[in-house]
Amino acid sequence: MTSFIQSVKLDDEKDELVILDQTILPNIVDYLHLKTQKSIWDAIYKLKVRGAPAIGIAAAYGQYLGVKSSKATTYDEFKEDFDKVKDYLASSRPTAVNLFWALERMAKRLELEKDKCIPEIKTALMDEAEQIRKEDVLICESIGKIGADLLEDGMTILTHCNAGSIATSGLGTALAPVYVSKAEGKRIAVYADETRPLLQGARLTAWELVESGIDTTLICDNMASIVMKAGKVDAVFVGCDRVALNGDTANKIGTSGLAILAKHYGIPFYVCAPTSTIDITCKTGLDIEIEERSGKEITDMWYEKPMAPENVKTYNPCFDVTDHELITGIITEKGLLKPNYTESIGALFN
Amino acid sequence: MTSFIQSVKLDDEKDELVILDQTILPNIVDYLHLKTQKSIWDAIYKLKVRGAPAIGIAAAYGQYLGVKSSKATTYDEFKEDFDKVKDYLASSRPTAVNLFWALERMAKRLELEKDKCIPEIKTALMDEAEQIRKEDVLICESIGKIGADLLEDGMTILTHCNAGSIATSGLGTALAPVYVSKAEGKRIAVYADETRPLLQGARLTAWELVESGIDTTLICDNMASIVMKAGKVDAVFVGCDRVALNGDTANKIGTSGLAILAKHYGIPFYVCAPTSTIDITCKTGLDIEIEERSGKEITDMWYEKPMAPENVKTYNPCFDVTDHELITGIITEKGLLKPNYTESIGALFN
Repeated sequence: MTSFIQSVKLDDEKDELVILDQTILPNIVDYLHLKTQKSIWDAIYKLKVRGAPAIGIAAAYGQYLGVKSSKATTYDEFKEDFDKVKDYLASSRPTAVNLFWALERMAKRLELEKDKCIPEIKTALMDEAEQIRKEDVLICESIGKIGADLLEDGMTILTHCNAGSIATSGLGTALAPVYVSKAEGKRIAVYADETRPLLQGARLTAWELVESGIDTTLICDNMASIVMKAGKVDAVFVGCDRVALNGDTANKIGTSGLAILAKHYGIPFYVCAPTSTIDITCKTGLDIEIEERSGKEITDMWYEKPMAPENVKTYNPCFDVTDHELITGIITEKGLLKPNYTESIGALFN
Repeated sequence: MTSFIQSVKLDDEKDELVILDQTILPNIVDYLHLKTQKSIWDAIYKLKVRGAPAIGIAAAYGQYLGVKSSKATTYDEFKEDFDKVKDYLASSRPTAVNLFWALERMAKRLELEKDKCIPEIKTALMDEAEQIRKEDVLICESIGKIGADLLEDGMTILTHCNAGSIATSGLGTALAPVYVSKAEGKRIAVYADETRPLLQGARLTAWELVESGIDTTLICDNMASIVMKAGKVDAVFVGCDRVALNGDTANKIGTSGLAILAKHYGIPFYVCAPTSTIDITCKTGLDIEIEERSGKEITDMWYEKPMAPENVKTYNPCFDVTDHELITGIITEKGLLKPNYTESIGALFN
């Protein structure tokens, strides 16, 4: 297995969830040791743990830690305690799909173990949380291997936002090919877009890549064109929030512009997507709603002093949709999908 | 004449140069009243006045203010004082072409007036500085009119960086068409790119447009693609630092990416360029050197707290070159140039 920064893991000797606090990176690297459901709720709510897969795993462990001290002696009593913890954790971030998915999976395991004794059920729940984490690790590893096969020693990729190891419990998605390449002995360098307004590229991607010994250069988002034009970028790798049936892909704001530049300069553009992010109920990108966030994220630059006139209007969409025709390939854990995506994605789900 | 924010002007009753301090915008709007060559040197050096035309005008007035109290009684004595002031002001920003150009023009006027008495020479120098300012105002007005003819009531443009009234002594270049349109009764709205890393779009463009009553929406640079895709942008107008003979144009970093997006979405892309910025000694953009600046501008976000890991590499080119084939037209004070630029620019200089 390729080594990586583990942002979410269980210390099973101490029965505590260990989380890398992402709100204070890169200035302070601190691992939080969480023993209670409340502290895990707080970590998810305050974005101390972020990235859909990482949130799901934290919630699953939170579910286990929340019931491990249950005094229940019957299944029904235990189930009552379990459901209280589940409802509580589910309220931490109402829009995070992986959160609900992970909690539901824990509930299914509980149901499956209902004839066991309470200590055995508790052990099974810990096991299920571990399973979820391990599966995520394998998905990332698989995406990494498929992506790494597209890279040769000495190549440079460009990435946007953070779809790295700290957004998952494994190697990440968009950065997984870089880590796998490194483990295979290939030197891959990375240009990291800073990713305004929230600077996930500067704060998180640059940090985890440098920590992992990857040759990394941080640029402003508007510098992608000049580095591509200079022939410095061999491929673009990005993550995604949702992929429609026709291959249209929603990802962090700025991704679509990057894809247009890549096409202009003849540079391959890859989306790294666990199959769980493919939503075949969306026929095209038009079915994907674009979330708009507060303009303060643009004007207030980390809330220290406003860098724009108070009365200016703002527009702050947090992601955009990249047309399928701009995407060279979609790398899933089950293989590299190529156009026509309606066919290649359809085949995956049939 | 269209009204605009005057960022550089002489108060001739008080014999002082009045400058809008651009280093503290948009939080504080303060006009500095400068009476000495030293205070003008300082204002140029510390970017309190910025924008090539504005710097030239400030320097010309500085030259006048620096010698107006000269005790010289002969031309030779006066010339000696003049040259000291000229050398001093020329040292304020060694790379600003307009600075030297303006000082040379003042020197030529001095030479022209050498047979006059000292008080008359002083008056002539004030007159020359005023001439330079007035010509700049007319150039901006002309660019504005030609650009406004390309715009219809209700249209929306997108701009990058600041090529507005506060970068010149007039209406600006890229924003001049917006101001002229307004004076003509046409409502033109503007999307302003924030323009990382130094945020000239957020701090300066948004400020001057809002102050001038223009419907303005501030976006991050990476949001240009989504607003263009949504059909919200009818044209892109940008300024320029230098235009090569074939039409390749150097401008603030990010401009070339914007031009590629505009082409992708079928949106016209105009460069607003006083003929003084056309450098026919550069055959193509390859002859234009790209200045690189400190990575601290990217990592330190206004020097309050670093937002990237300390040991990450950075690349911070301060402008890029937009290929002539991406440019719909170049708007000069002498008319709208269309491709083939080698021919249309060549014709202008023959």
